[in-house]
Amino acid sequence: MKQINVGLLGLGNIGTGSYKTLEMNREKIVAVAGADIRIVKILEREKNFDKERDIDVTREQFTADPDEIFNDPEIDIVIELLGGIEPASTFMLNAMNHGKSVVTANKAAVAASWTALNEAAKRNNVMFRFEAAVGGGIPILNALTTVLQANEYEEVLGILNGTTNYILTQMTDYGLDYDEVLKIAQEKGFAEADPTADVEGIDVANKLSILMALAFNKYVAPTDIPTEGITKITKKQLDVAKANGCKVKLIATARKVGDKIEYSVGPQELPVSHPLAGVSNEFNAVFVKGNAVDDLMFYGKGEGPLPTGSAVMGDVLEIAKVIAAQK
Amino acid sequence: MKQINVGLLGLGNIGTGSYKTLEMNREKIVAVAGADIRIVKILEREKNFDKERDIDVTREQFTADPDEIFNDPEIDIVIELLGGIEPASTFMLNAMNHGKSVVTANKAAVAASWTALNEAAKRNNVMFRFEAAVGGGIPILNALTTVLQANEYEEVLGILNGTTNYILTQMTDYGLDYDEVLKIAQEKGFAEADPTADVEGIDVANKLSILMALAFNKYVAPTDIPTEGITKITKKQLDVAKANGCKVKLIATARKVGDKIEYSVGPQELPVSHPLAGVSNEFNAVFVKGNAVDDLMFYGKGEGPLPTGSAVMGDVLEIAKVIAAQK
Repeated sequence: MKQINVGLLGLGNIGTGSYKTLEMNREKIVAVAGADIRIVKILEREKNFDKERDIDVTREQFTADPDEIFNDPEIDIVIELLGGIEPASTFMLNAMNHGKSVVTANKAAVAASWTALNEAAKRNNVMFRFEAAVGGGIPILNALTTVLQANEYEEVLGILNGTTNYILTQMTDYGLDYDEVLKIAQEKGFAEADPTADVEGIDVANKLSILMALAFNKYVAPTDIPTEGITKITKKQLDVAKANGCKVKLIATARKVGDKIEYSVGPQELPVSHPLAGVSNEFNAVFVKGNAVDDLMFYGKGEGPLPTGSAVMGDVLEIAKVIAAQK
Repeated sequence: MKQINVGLLGLGNIGTGSYKTLEMNREKIVAVAGADIRIVKILEREKNFDKERDIDVTREQFTADPDEIFNDPEIDIVIELLGGIEPASTFMLNAMNHGKSVVTANKAAVAASWTALNEAAKRNNVMFRFEAAVGGGIPILNALTTVLQANEYEEVLGILNGTTNYILTQMTDYGLDYDEVLKIAQEKGFAEADPTADVEGIDVANKLSILMALAFNKYVAPTDIPTEGITKITKKQLDVAKANGCKVKLIATARKVGDKIEYSVGPQELPVSHPLAGVSNEFNAVFVKGNAVDDLMFYGKGEGPLPTGSAVMGDVLEIAKVIAAQK
């Protein structure tokens, strides 16, 4: 049986979830890929080699030196799950320049380094996939870049951040204030201690940058997307919306208007009849309008180690199919 | 520029919608495929060559003889949109045996002739795609057979028939009887004069047969799927469901229970909190639970010439990419 070797950069929550997805479904994944897929090396810069992670990993798989992965001619695919723009972007470029295909869940790095990463993939004739970067487990990027491409996209709307959608849902359903719900969300682990990237819409702007680049072939840096978060939303505002038959959601919008694309991230009042209005709590969803297919919606878990691991390993699998056919 | 030639079997509603999708989005489709895609021959058995169809088609494109398409060495892809099990199945087999890849929207033929069609595709080393056969414009089959494959699927549920979902929605929302709504649906063109295949669940059983074969690698002939339609549903039953916080939907179910797959088509009471409960009127949706990705839902127009045309041309495009890379 052919073997495809994978190097994994980062074994945090998402790394562990991805590793677990492969362990759990190895038999099916191998059958579908037509090759044995092995995570042979794992970068763990903090040298937390002995931490308990509830996965079957040996000391020999770990390295603290990323070059051991980039320089290994036996490694076909590199998964980057470090998070943050750097050193993740540089590591992905290094991997591609060494002829490796790259899979990542890192929306900040993909959005910030879009042009460099895509050009490096093309130049090195390697594959670059990042399904998990937008909507976690929801297979929206694959749909937009394959079977939906017979459409001109007219509109892409997304609820792309579980933390803010949880906060808004709880505020709406229980008449609570923003600060109260944020505290509960932090206690439950749905919001980070420093929630800035989520509640100020920065995370969503990263994801919209990626969606727009794929759907409209127009790259806009996330920092150039008009972005408003949810910190100024009041209980009263939600009550008024409810009285008008609406729900307030943090929406990423990209819309074709004539020859231009209008784009923004910010709170919007959606009529309760809109498919996105019913997307509650930690769930994410992407709404797409195509000029042939009309309205579509994709709904699912936008976060979590296993839903994100599903998207990461799905990308690995798609790349593995191609490599296996060539080996 | 490379050219990929397509033969089209059938120019009814869906055929016209597919043709129109290609016309409307030709520039993008050609750019994405890396080849010019031309529908060069159209089978029109009734010889309705001069019918007004609101598309740009010439007399020279038509033929009344399917062999003119199968025997044309210049044709790479055959789209089958005749409907019904025969002669559609035989025509698709003929096309494959002549080395052509096949795209179809025909759930009855794909479900009934599953084994023969898939074996013929494999034997002839051609591609066989049928996204439009399940959920119309919703790209569910592509998702199940690509990026979601790192999951073991635990459950697939679908609202897969617009006519019956329209009838049930109207009965629920306006407290009407089945017969009243059926009449309205027929007047509005949402139900056919003979609605048997829709209201008795036969159409849904065809679609479930295809979904199960892909999701669980288990082919069950549609006639072997326990199937109940909606003709016996009363206003009272819907009221009782509503009082219990539920909605009645015609659901296709396939679920893994131990080593077995349980499957059926029939009305089910869903709690209003279930993602499928909010799918109204002519919309379709497929709910998938994977052991890594957890709950996902895909929602969109299950019928109509352009949504179905989107799925048909999306499949043509995916095949064209592969052929163009080889040409």
